[in-house]
Amino acid sequence: MMSGSTPGFAFRTTATDGHARAGVLSTAHGDVLTPTFMPVGTQGSVKTLTPAEVAATGARIVLGNGYHLWLRPGPELIAAHGGLHGFVHWPHAMLTDSGGFQAYSLGEQCKVDDDGLLFRSHLDGSRRALSPEESMRVQGLIGADIAMQLDVCPPAEASGAEVLRAVRRTTAWARRCLQAKRPEQALFGIVQGGTDVPTRLAHADELGALPFDGLALGGLSVGEPNALMHELLEAVAHRMDGARPRYLMGVGTPSDLLRGIRAGIDMFDCVMPTRNARNGQALCWAGKIVIKQARYRDDQQPLDSRCTCPACTEGYSRAYLRHLFMAGEILVLRLLSVHNLHFYGELVRRAREAIVENRFEAFCSASLSELGTGP
Amino acid sequence: MMSGSTPGFAFRTTATDGHARAGVLSTAHGDVLTPTFMPVGTQGSVKTLTPAEVAATGARIVLGNGYHLWLRPGPELIAAHGGLHGFVHWPHAMLTDSGGFQAYSLGEQCKVDDDGLLFRSHLDGSRRALSPEESMRVQGLIGADIAMQLDVCPPAEASGAEVLRAVRRTTAWARRCLQAKRPEQALFGIVQGGTDVPTRLAHADELGALPFDGLALGGLSVGEPNALMHELLEAVAHRMDGARPRYLMGVGTPSDLLRGIRAGIDMFDCVMPTRNARNGQALCWAGKIVIKQARYRDDQQPLDSRCTCPACTEGYSRAYLRHLFMAGEILVLRLLSVHNLHFYGELVRRAREAIVENRFEAFCSASLSELGTGP
Repeated sequence: MMSGSTPGFAFRTTATDGHARAGVLSTAHGDVLTPTFMPVGTQGSVKTLTPAEVAATGARIVLGNGYHLWLRPGPELIAAHGGLHGFVHWPHAMLTDSGGFQAYSLGEQCKVDDDGLLFRSHLDGSRRALSPEESMRVQGLIGADIAMQLDVCPPAEASGAEVLRAVRRTTAWARRCLQAKRPEQALFGIVQGGTDVPTRLAHADELGALPFDGLALGGLSVGEPNALMHELLEAVAHRMDGARPRYLMGVGTPSDLLRGIRAGIDMFDCVMPTRNARNGQALCWAGKIVIKQARYRDDQQPLDSRCTCPACTEGYSRAYLRHLFMAGEILVLRLLSVHNLHFYGELVRRAREAIVENRFEAFCSASLSELGTGP
Repeated sequence: MMSGSTPGFAFRTTATDGHARAGVLSTAHGDVLTPTFMPVGTQGSVKTLTPAEVAATGARIVLGNGYHLWLRPGPELIAAHGGLHGFVHWPHAMLTDSGGFQAYSLGEQCKVDDDGLLFRSHLDGSRRALSPEESMRVQGLIGADIAMQLDVCPPAEASGAEVLRAVRRTTAWARRCLQAKRPEQALFGIVQGGTDVPTRLAHADELGALPFDGLALGGLSVGEPNALMHELLEAVAHRMDGARPRYLMGVGTPSDLLRGIRAGIDMFDCVMPTRNARNGQALCWAGKIVIKQARYRDDQQPLDSRCTCPACTEGYSRAYLRHLFMAGEILVLRLLSVHNLHFYGELVRRAREAIVENRFEAFCSASLSELGTGP
């Protein structure tokens, strides 16, 4: 195994409990305690919230979206602002994804060959080419602390041959991204392999032999049964190089996070807490609240009486939040967003505490049972 | 003249400068320094902002909309929360309008007779009847510090006969509202009369003879030429009973506010600062900024370098705000809203300071000239 040597970037594990681990990810923009959840700021904004509000949920690292920021406002403009940190005024750590996943899912007429992706922008139909080198150039200009390699992310229904081709291409692009990366920017490799454990383990070893600063699991939560993902996590995560941070991309529900942490994952990102908020859903320990339901019409309780977030402690009742949602008022989208991110922040904070105190398994079982099948 | 005697409600003038006056409006929810601008919380929310953010712009009184709150969520639900103060968690003063103006403008098939308004709800088409007594019942349940009488607000193109009929009906409804009002809730009368000065003066005297706690000018900024409104203000405002607060309803631009204050007005409300914000317009002393314009694409300056609001002091550049607007991000609507309300808050604060220091005319002329024809 051969870790990266990006200046200012480091990872160390400070406690373990089973496969679960507590650690510290050090970046040029501060330390991030792991396990950690990264709120998603797709277009340079964690939707509806200010950077200070995001930080107050406990987040010390956010994710920016390479595809969206590449197309609009463009990496050169961001670079002229001193990078994404300066542009969006976020003082803590940041990670960008390669843009590949959104090029597949949002780009039109997307074609993949050995050189990269060819597609049309979903914004204006313009032709775009995303090679490993272009992704590194774009992410370099955006200037997050951590960049992600360009990878090939096959759909859940892909054949075994397709998955193997994706793995091979991802490895080839991994080498090209490492060649093209900026010395001061950390770079993570992305393990592919669908839900086949031996393929995943082989790819984890292959990428682990390269000087990446961290290793991610990609191509999960793309439509495969949730139980399959959990099995794969249990079999693979703890066998990825333990000296480097392990990042499970685009996942997931609170239960997914708990299972991921138990399997040895350190980092997560997902749009769920903010997207669900905008759909009127609040994640609570006692279960999900769908705020438009008539049962909340006269309910003077706060969203979650056990929660310490601003939405739950500054005097907003469920009835008022429901009224705002029914009336189409933006304030409720903010309040539910901050609540859901606070919930995720608390979840990883408590998980970390349990790991440090060597009681993670009990915490995890009790939490999974309390959360039930949802949210 | 005969002022109201609502317990806990009082108004006193502390300084005058020409017709302009500085005063203190005392309510059960604190003192409001006048001249004052009331941000509009149509549906129980000053759009996009929390109560604390609204208060931080300097506002100490907000307006709730009788029509909207009557239809949704309904005054009984609000009363069960301890009134609108408790429902929306706003600790300072509040005023509600009667619902009449929105019934005319939003309600469908609206008919007016001596008993009130008959119309269909714009939300569900249900038949609704708004009499003076029903308006007072609704506003009583909503429980703002100040209620407004139900009035008849003729359009700008109304004939002289229509205007006179509106005035007569408004006076009849004034008496009925005073009969029906809650003892603990202040009530303002609404002077009508179109742009005819003698009609306005006569109506101001007529209503001034009734025990209202304040007097408003209604039926302005309804489509008449702006200069006509200014002339009317100059001729009428200072001749409305000086012992009571004078409120110019639904007005207006920063220039309108300055002219209103010069004419002797104490209170204003308008959706402009928040509505313009949602359309991407920032009000600045140096002129209006339309944030989507290409000229701001690379502009690293804050919105207004002379402004002390969070949007201007927390590191957001014009280029970033433009990006957020082009990308449809809610954060920019918040930032422009808080900026515009802060601008209005500063405007009335400076106006008050100038009155107290006996230099209002110079301040007013300089400001009108700096603002130009806009914003």
